[in-house]
Amino acid sequence: MRSNVADSNQKNRQELERRLAEFVREEVIPREDLTRAHDRDWFQYTTTELAGIARAAGLYGPRLTPEHGGLRLSWSDCCWYFEQVGRSFLGPAALGCAAPGQPDIAVLEHLATEVQARRYLHPLVAGERRSCFAMTEPAPGAGSDPKMLRTTARRTAEGWVIDGHKWFISGAMVADFAIVVARTEEGVTWFLVDADNLGMRRVRDIPTMEPFDIGGHAEIMFENCQVPADAILGQPGRGLEYSQWRLEGARLFHCMRFIGLASRAMETAQGYVNQRRSHGVLLAEHQLVQGMVADAHIDLYAARLMTHDVAQRLDRQDAIRHESSMLKVFVSEAVNRVADTAVQITGALGVSEDMPLSMILRMLRPFRIYDGASEVHRAAIGKRVLHRQITP
Amino acid sequence: MRSNVADSNQKNRQELERRLAEFVREEVIPREDLTRAHDRDWFQYTTTELAGIARAAGLYGPRLTPEHGGLRLSWSDCCWYFEQVGRSFLGPAALGCAAPGQPDIAVLEHLATEVQARRYLHPLVAGERRSCFAMTEPAPGAGSDPKMLRTTARRTAEGWVIDGHKWFISGAMVADFAIVVARTEEGVTWFLVDADNLGMRRVRDIPTMEPFDIGGHAEIMFENCQVPADAILGQPGRGLEYSQWRLEGARLFHCMRFIGLASRAMETAQGYVNQRRSHGVLLAEHQLVQGMVADAHIDLYAARLMTHDVAQRLDRQDAIRHESSMLKVFVSEAVNRVADTAVQITGALGVSEDMPLSMILRMLRPFRIYDGASEVHRAAIGKRVLHRQITP
Amino acid sequence: MRSNVADSNQKNRQELERRLAEFVREEVIPREDLTRAHDRDWFQYTTTELAGIARAAGLYGPRLTPEHGGLRLSWSDCCWYFEQVGRSFLGPAALGCAAPGQPDIAVLEHLATEVQARRYLHPLVAGERRSCFAMTEPAPGAGSDPKMLRTTARRTAEGWVIDGHKWFISGAMVADFAIVVARTEEGVTWFLVDADNLGMRRVRDIPTMEPFDIGGHAEIMFENCQVPADAILGQPGRGLEYSQWRLEGARLFHCMRFIGLASRAMETAQGYVNQRRSHGVLLAEHQLVQGMVADAHIDLYAARLMTHDVAQRLDRQDAIRHESSMLKVFVSEAVNRVADTAVQITGALGVSEDMPLSMILRMLRPFRIYDGASEVHRAAIGKRVLHRQITP
Amino acid sequence: MRSNVADSNQKNRQELERRLAEFVREEVIPREDLTRAHDRDWFQYTTTELAGIARAAGLYGPRLTPEHGGLRLSWSDCCWYFEQVGRSFLGPAALGCAAPGQPDIAVLEHLATEVQARRYLHPLVAGERRSCFAMTEPAPGAGSDPKMLRTTARRTAEGWVIDGHKWFISGAMVADFAIVVARTEEGVTWFLVDADNLGMRRVRDIPTMEPFDIGGHAEIMFENCQVPADAILGQPGRGLEYSQWRLEGARLFHCMRFIGLASRAMETAQGYVNQRRSHGVLLAEHQLVQGMVADAHIDLYAARLMTHDVAQRLDRQDAIRHESSMLKVFVSEAVNRVADTAVQITGALGVSEDMPLSMILRMLRPFRIYDGASEVHRAAIGKRVLHRQITP
Repeated sequence: MRSNVADSNQKNRQELERRLAEFVREEVIPREDLTRAHDRDWFQYTTTELAGIARAAGLYGPRLTPEHGGLRLSWSDCCWYFEQVGRSFLGPAALGCAAPGQPDIAVLEHLATEVQARRYLHPLVAGERRSCFAMTEPAPGAGSDPKMLRTTARRTAEGWVIDGHKWFISGAMVADFAIVVARTEEGVTWFLVDADNLGMRRVRDIPTMEPFDIGGHAEIMFENCQVPADAILGQPGRGLEYSQWRLEGARLFHCMRFIGLASRAMETAQGYVNQRRSHGVLLAEHQLVQGMVADAHIDLYAARLMTHDVAQRLDRQDAIRHESSMLKVFVSEAVNRVADTAVQITGALGVSEDMPLSMILRMLRPFRIYDGASEVHRAAIGKRVLHRQITP
Repeated sequence: MRSNVADSNQKNRQELERRLAEFVREEVIPREDLTRAHDRDWFQYTTTELAGIARAAGLYGPRLTPEHGGLRLSWSDCCWYFEQVGRSFLGPAALGCAAPGQPDIAVLEHLATEVQARRYLHPLVAGERRSCFAMTEPAPGAGSDPKMLRTTARRTAEGWVIDGHKWFISGAMVADFAIVVARTEEGVTWFLVDADNLGMRRVRDIPTMEPFDIGGHAEIMFENCQVPADAILGQPGRGLEYSQWRLEGARLFHCMRFIGLASRAMETAQGYVNQRRSHGVLLAEHQLVQGMVADAHIDLYAARLMTHDVAQRLDRQDAIRHESSMLKVFVSEAVNRVADTAVQITGALGVSEDMPLSMILRMLRPFRIYDGASEVHRAAIGKRVLHRQITP
Repeated sequence: MRSNVADSNQKNRQELERRLAEFVREEVIPREDLTRAHDRDWFQYTTTELAGIARAAGLYGPRLTPEHGGLRLSWSDCCWYFEQVGRSFLGPAALGCAAPGQPDIAVLEHLATEVQARRYLHPLVAGERRSCFAMTEPAPGAGSDPKMLRTTARRTAEGWVIDGHKWFISGAMVADFAIVVARTEEGVTWFLVDADNLGMRRVRDIPTMEPFDIGGHAEIMFENCQVPADAILGQPGRGLEYSQWRLEGARLFHCMRFIGLASRAMETAQGYVNQRRSHGVLLAEHQLVQGMVADAHIDLYAARLMTHDVAQRLDRQDAIRHESSMLKVFVSEAVNRVADTAVQITGALGVSEDMPLSMILRMLRPFRIYDGASEVHRAAIGKRVLHRQITP
Repeated sequence: MRSNVADSNQKNRQELERRLAEFVREEVIPREDLTRAHDRDWFQYTTTELAGIARAAGLYGPRLTPEHGGLRLSWSDCCWYFEQVGRSFLGPAALGCAAPGQPDIAVLEHLATEVQARRYLHPLVAGERRSCFAMTEPAPGAGSDPKMLRTTARRTAEGWVIDGHKWFISGAMVADFAIVVARTEEGVTWFLVDADNLGMRRVRDIPTMEPFDIGGHAEIMFENCQVPADAILGQPGRGLEYSQWRLEGARLFHCMRFIGLASRAMETAQGYVNQRRSHGVLLAEHQLVQGMVADAHIDLYAARLMTHDVAQRLDRQDAIRHESSMLKVFVSEAVNRVADTAVQITGALGVSEDMPLSMILRMLRPFRIYDGASEVHRAAIGKRVLHRQITP
């Protein structure tokens, strides 16, 4: 029997979802400007403005605690929240839940000392400082195989000296500090490094195919980068384990938000085929179009169920390593299929930038690579099954 | 907060699932004989013997009421039950939940009068009589389009006279009575017809590619088939609606059991690649094999989630027409992909009948056609979405 | 028995192919600058410079007649020529065979009067003027269904007045004249219109996802656009037939050049996986990578054979309508699969703009839509087969 | 310039093709009896009868020399010949070109001594004796990896003694002699062994999913199997090389004939959808059906071109190892897609055995495994490309 409390919670949740959807539809999406896909200042200005409105409306910060002005939703509830927010290129930044900040907050909440929390976590939560997570390295360093990590941290009298070469560090072009993954005697270890440290040099912003990717993908040199002893985050030697854990959460959020982006693409395309005629009837009456729409919705249906299932497992604190891999492969490929279909049935307008569709496609394509390429996950999933490490 | 009752239910459920899995593994599968895929007597004898053991063990009849010796599981709980049972070609018949009997019991429970229940439902439940559902007709009659129904029932002084031509009537070769779908003045109507009615003639058993398909797929002529006035099941004119409703349930059970069959195929294949070496290593160490195994498990994961979601909707008495279509398309194609992969990684043994794999493939292939071909569902799903009849 | 002439031709052909490949590799590709994907002036300057070198080397103008300084290759020989040239974003423009000029020259050669040839064809061939082909219209005009054409040409005392709205007119932003498709009393008719005609107004360049697409995709208004009586190209009323014929040629050239672009993507990616290590071995040693490379090469193999077959049919002056449709569907989808694979196995670098891969993907994606979307062709192919208009 | 001889050849070829097609359509296919898919005597009787008619009509033996009553077609010409013959389950056997006899004749023509030719080749050619090729072994022997061969041949005073265990030896249930692949001191070596040798014991016929697979797939024990010194075929130690060469030819013939079988499936299905109505129109008017038909014909188009290309390379005596692998992967998968589509659009009749479609599917499925599974070829193709052993 469902209690009154549960009923009331359910009602509150639906009301929040309704208001959030309205906010995204009425405030966020109308502020998008497809011609400013690479305009960092405009993006920063617009999302800051939206964040203010969202905070006032009690819609901001899905994972932040109430004392930080957030909603502290469960992982399961984040599914509908992130799907709504993810519909817009501006959404996650506007609502205080964009990567890399979102997963960085999650790890800092668990690992930061009080001093570290004051210096890094609280300003990050407040939107006053921005973070990035510096793990990936150019060849022959850590790419899809984290064991190949080459960045080192050497202990000195005053603390540590970090040396290494990182790249594709998302958000680093606007970050105020970095979580840096480096190898010490104890094993792989995490460090907090301020972006104005003289030993941390952002060489350049690597251009990628993504639009509205405002924090960039920086190439960074750490050269004789001196940090104090208390720059270590968490315990030394547990960095790979932390990275895996951070990644599982980050990956889940990406799935949630990209389901939203792909859904928007399909709805936009559906609107188009319901207007445009060809060979005597609406495109929507063409059976090949109906079939493509059907496949897209089957993909979205499965993607939502799988995302929700992994979120529920996290809420129950189950291990999700295996399911998280399956989720990543399925959802990253499904949302790309969906967006590709949206482009295709919209024809020439679909590849134009009059509509957001081809930009959505460009935004989604890297997700089949970032957070572990599909092939890396497939090999890992297959091995786990075949080595009987999991019971299907 | 979960109550003690819920905890105890949960524990009972897990114990039942464990015992059922053991029964299928220890009693049912060992009785399979791949060389008797078309031996009707052996099948009947073996499943009757198994049914007796299952009843004694309290494992029989997932949807039957306790007074009929059944478990009366919810639709959600049927998911794990049917998956276990579906692992064996013999399982559904042995455990009292094979089609067409299972969905016919469901409709009779809702529609049968007391007299009809005594004559048809109770013996069906007891395993004393067998049913079939006679809807499909050869061209130009009702195939994938039920509106093309041509079988007629004409009112007479004593009752009704049915005339028509049916085929691909599953189970009809061994059925004791049929639910016959015919057109009357009131519209499409259901009738109960005894198989020994002189006006109902089973012309032949249409051979199909399926093994262990014991009830056959009969071609039936109804010629001047006289039935009494009370042979009508349910209300006249509501036959299409009933058929849709029967189909949604039947389709869901097929999804559940075929997930079991496909899972068994994969586990069998996994056992093989963990034994067989090629090019210096176990096949299980070949990355292409790992990738195929991964895709199969991702398919099964999504298939289980979608099946469970539709079952939960039925338990909540939600409309499932749209989800049921998406489920049918996805699961019927997913289990075929999985079984195809199982065959492929097992190589020549996979296409042999030393192992059950190619027979599983033959059993699953028609499911992409029966209960509505994928293309029919795709067009229907697409139309519903595009005509905004559903909110995604 | 092959004659000496044939042997000598074969030798000349191989020598030309070798020199062309060298030219593309040594001169054209090194001049590419990925940061200038939208720099029209740079593109114009660079390709003009390259054209000069190519002319001097006797490599320019595959379809131009020798008197125009060209090679007048057969359609079959164009296969290897365009594949080489197509490897570079700059190639077709640099070698005098880019669309829309290339197919416009082809139609002018057949249809232009002597006066029209002097005014339009010869300067086009000489690279002194540029053309565009104005057929596509916004809804509710001619998109994938040419019968929906709404632009009209009305006869006057002095000639014709054209009124209509066109868009996605490739190359129109830099064109000196347009071939305009309009409806007259006689049916669909072609007109030659100078770009400085006051009645022809380029409203804007529609932004699309393609890089290095220098002529743009213009939206054009024809408003009271007056042209003389001799502006008609070919015979009045045969415009749809001409358009189909122009399209078949244009489509074939696109297939040829995009096979080159996709091949380059794969070779670039192969170079990458032969350098980069992961999980202890080169990426090239990962079987999943090998499998993806294999599929890409199978696709390219089939794409080349199909392209060559259609070219041979054109050389024999066979009808190619059916084969041209199959070719378009297969090659447009195959080159996209190949480029997608190239991006995927190159990982984060693949989606970056440090390498050309993601730009190649963006260049190829619209080809599944332009020249007839895959779905339009599929329906047409299926109908032709089913209506027995062709013998398979 | 084409000579008169060429013109006359071309005309003869077309006439032969026309007569062959007529023979298959009028004589061979009408003799098929789908209820006798496992009746060895009926098959033998019927194909022998047909062979007689074919010989009389000058249609028999595409690769046999004229003195053996054959046509001695080039590999290229075999493409159309085998496609026609392959349309029927009975065709290859009836026209003297079924495996394993066809490829065994090819290797014997190259390798047999005069004595061996008299004893094995000539009777094989005449249809008086039948052969099989005994290479595959159960684990841990030679399956997809021929290097794992375990069967041995030990030299004795009188000749050789062969010991080993073979299985899935196609045709062996009716063979009069076997080419046995065994390991000697010199390496892998081929032997000719009469089926009545006391040391060669056919244990059983392994049942597989294929219908009309009349020679079976035998499991064979070689136990102290004594053969004379001159039982060696070819040179000792070159067995792997011979096997590869035999396989390339056999694989090509399988591609040719299975294109025929898949084409027939599609034409049968096209006939069906041109008769059957659903939702108000012929199935042939449903766009989803048109799209599936289109994809099938694109697959067949590519499959024919690739098969013809490899045949031409063989006629030119080029190396075909790489192309042969690509061909095998593409065609084996393409014909399965085509047959699957034929079944699907034919609905319930498609999975019945009233029509040949599901039997065609069962016949084609193993081809993705026999002659090297797709995955083995994919890894090999990928490696060759990546190791730069071939120039694409």
